[in-house]
Amino acid sequence: MSGPSLRRQVEALLQGAKQAAAELSRAPTRRKNRALLAMAESLTAGAPEILKANARDLEAASRRGTGQALLDRLELNPKRIREMAQGLREVAALADPVGKVLARWRRPNGLRISKVRVPIGVIGIVYEARPNVTADCAGLCLKSGNACVLRGGSEAILSSRAIFLRLQKGVRAGGLPAGSVNLIWSTDRQAVDLLLSAVGRVDLVIPRGGQGLIRQVTAKARVPVIKQYQGICHTFVDEGCDLSMARRISYNAKVQRPGVCNAMETLLVHRKAAPRFLPAMAEEYLRAGVELRGDAATRRILRGLPVAAASEKDWATEYLALILSIKVVDSVEEAIRHIRRFGSGHSDAIVTRSKARAGRFTREVDSACVYVNASTRFTDGGQFGLGSEIGVSTDKIHARGPMGLEELTSYKYIVQGRGQVRE
Amino acid sequence: MSGPSLRRQVEALLQGAKQAAAELSRAPTRRKNRALLAMAESLTAGAPEILKANARDLEAASRRGTGQALLDRLELNPKRIREMAQGLREVAALADPVGKVLARWRRPNGLRISKVRVPIGVIGIVYEARPNVTADCAGLCLKSGNACVLRGGSEAILSSRAIFLRLQKGVRAGGLPAGSVNLIWSTDRQAVDLLLSAVGRVDLVIPRGGQGLIRQVTAKARVPVIKQYQGICHTFVDEGCDLSMARRISYNAKVQRPGVCNAMETLLVHRKAAPRFLPAMAEEYLRAGVELRGDAATRRILRGLPVAAASEKDWATEYLALILSIKVVDSVEEAIRHIRRFGSGHSDAIVTRSKARAGRFTREVDSACVYVNASTRFTDGGQFGLGSEIGVSTDKIHARGPMGLEELTSYKYIVQGRGQVRE
Repeated sequence: MSGPSLRRQVEALLQGAKQAAAELSRAPTRRKNRALLAMAESLTAGAPEILKANARDLEAASRRGTGQALLDRLELNPKRIREMAQGLREVAALADPVGKVLARWRRPNGLRISKVRVPIGVIGIVYEARPNVTADCAGLCLKSGNACVLRGGSEAILSSRAIFLRLQKGVRAGGLPAGSVNLIWSTDRQAVDLLLSAVGRVDLVIPRGGQGLIRQVTAKARVPVIKQYQGICHTFVDEGCDLSMARRISYNAKVQRPGVCNAMETLLVHRKAAPRFLPAMAEEYLRAGVELRGDAATRRILRGLPVAAASEKDWATEYLALILSIKVVDSVEEAIRHIRRFGSGHSDAIVTRSKARAGRFTREVDSACVYVNASTRFTDGGQFGLGSEIGVSTDKIHARGPMGLEELTSYKYIVQGRGQVRE
Repeated sequence: MSGPSLRRQVEALLQGAKQAAAELSRAPTRRKNRALLAMAESLTAGAPEILKANARDLEAASRRGTGQALLDRLELNPKRIREMAQGLREVAALADPVGKVLARWRRPNGLRISKVRVPIGVIGIVYEARPNVTADCAGLCLKSGNACVLRGGSEAILSSRAIFLRLQKGVRAGGLPAGSVNLIWSTDRQAVDLLLSAVGRVDLVIPRGGQGLIRQVTAKARVPVIKQYQGICHTFVDEGCDLSMARRISYNAKVQRPGVCNAMETLLVHRKAAPRFLPAMAEEYLRAGVELRGDAATRRILRGLPVAAASEKDWATEYLALILSIKVVDSVEEAIRHIRRFGSGHSDAIVTRSKARAGRFTREVDSACVYVNASTRFTDGGQFGLGSEIGVSTDKIHARGPMGLEELTSYKYIVQGRGQVRE
């Protein structure tokens, strides 16, 4: 498609989204829920055509020699489609954040001010291979009263289009404007640039995907962006802690699901705890197939076990795999310094019996979620009780940590007077 | 200064700011207040040297043929220095937002989650001519536990440096790290670019100034930005409203201080109210020296009075001066449509006796502050009771409307467990 024609297409789509956003912002909860249930229904009914489109995406991907991990993310099956539909039903069941009065006060001059939750407006979602993001994000944006503009990865484009067409059917059946949920049809990269530079028409862009995507979006965006950079999460095993609790937590944080952002990448162990803690822990990890990389002190203690030497680069790496770097530290202060230097501000844990050191750790570790005696794996909208999440923000602006429906809203001030003017 | 040397200088400054931010984030309220009072004291004591520096800025500016409006913004005098010092004392008296528990709950698995207010970190402020911004922003950032990196306009650079040196003295006297308040010494534009692209070292940039500055910052920023675009504010005079109240509000919104963002730029009048409302109103405006520009219906009603024809461009212009555009509309719907199309999402008012139309207006006008029967001039942190403000956000992300101390904070989740792991 030629540049000007693509531009016109995206412009038209954004204008439709803006109009729909205005209507959606005042849609009653009942109608939004009805649309979400219709979207779920429509997905289920359309499973055969979605699977057919997905098969073509998969075929094209394997022809290009795509690796197994990406193919896994790309693949849909009847169960995954049922889960998408179920996700939409769960979002319908969540409380509507729009219209909530966050605060209300009266000024000495009699002005009554209220601060009321409102949708953000038009939200762009730029994502990669996983086609289920299409349904998940559409549902969360719709429930929070926002029009969304989805732009999926080219490798999943046929699947995303098929899902989108089914969602659209549901949106209309629910009596909401078609522009509530939009998909950028083209796979041209320029379409993303147009979205990212649409100041005044796009209120927020959320990139969902790898670091490459997020860097690209950040570099090009003129509109606000909330990012989920990497999760370089730590667990610090303090001196004098309950070592069996430390083992359970450290094992869970690394092994239970290593490919996600809240999994641990670096284990920090107090020098006094290391000789008793590390040998048994290392054996557990090795049995689970974890590749270990340690600093000199760790390797000394684990002499005889297969532990590679960790380099500076390891401390700064999000493995997203069964690999763990281990470092022995002299104090909680050193652990905090290490996390402040190499962490990504996502999730970090301390296992300790000391209230003082727990307090110090939670105050001084500057991360979205700081844990005392629990696994970092709990950083998740569902686990936090926020309902479904659209991502985990490692930014400090607007939303930090798991982002649920409330984090997809803004507010406005409504000021009621009786003719007051400013002196 | 050469590029690499400037880069090293800015890098060093940002590193110092980041370290100071860590310390400042846990500084007790008492110590921050002591520093603020010492900063106020130091400003007062340093008035002669500040005024000397300011005189040199003014001299250079008039040599360059700078206009009177800009010279006014640039000029300091003993009263303005006293006001700066007083501003710092007022910030010391405000409640400390840091450490406040925003929410606290317990999950079925026993995890106790609390959401706690924390500083944002390092905040960059890029501003133009008014040297008092140096003190105002430094005070608000310090009280909210943030290190600030100030970058003032080149036309006020000597004044800003003099103020900064006095503030620094106060920061140290108060026992806080010197890196808490920073000024980019160079006037090289490249220094701003370095600040705007310092991902991971600068957490937020707030531009304060004209549209040109804000566009530049938005175009170049890789770090999060909160903007105050223009204030194209409206007052809608509804049919059947109290016309004398409408006159008081419309007069105040335009005339009381026309050069600020919350002043009205466009008056919308219901067709049924126009014949009785407009003639007397126009006379009041003309007596106050307001230049009027109207649509055809307005000019018909005001035949004989000097009312120029308003063009499309007028509806989209922030005059910041004694100029007013006037339009006659058929309904509250048309008023809302006009505001949604031409407004800037800042502050808009309706004067009405109808609860239904007031409700419609407050729901459908998508602006930071929506007024019923009051002047838009109240959009201000002080008037809202938030204390001093660092600006008025027209963004919908993070903060909307007047930004006080709370809006300069983020939050973190602290999760307390007893060994919980994820199943």
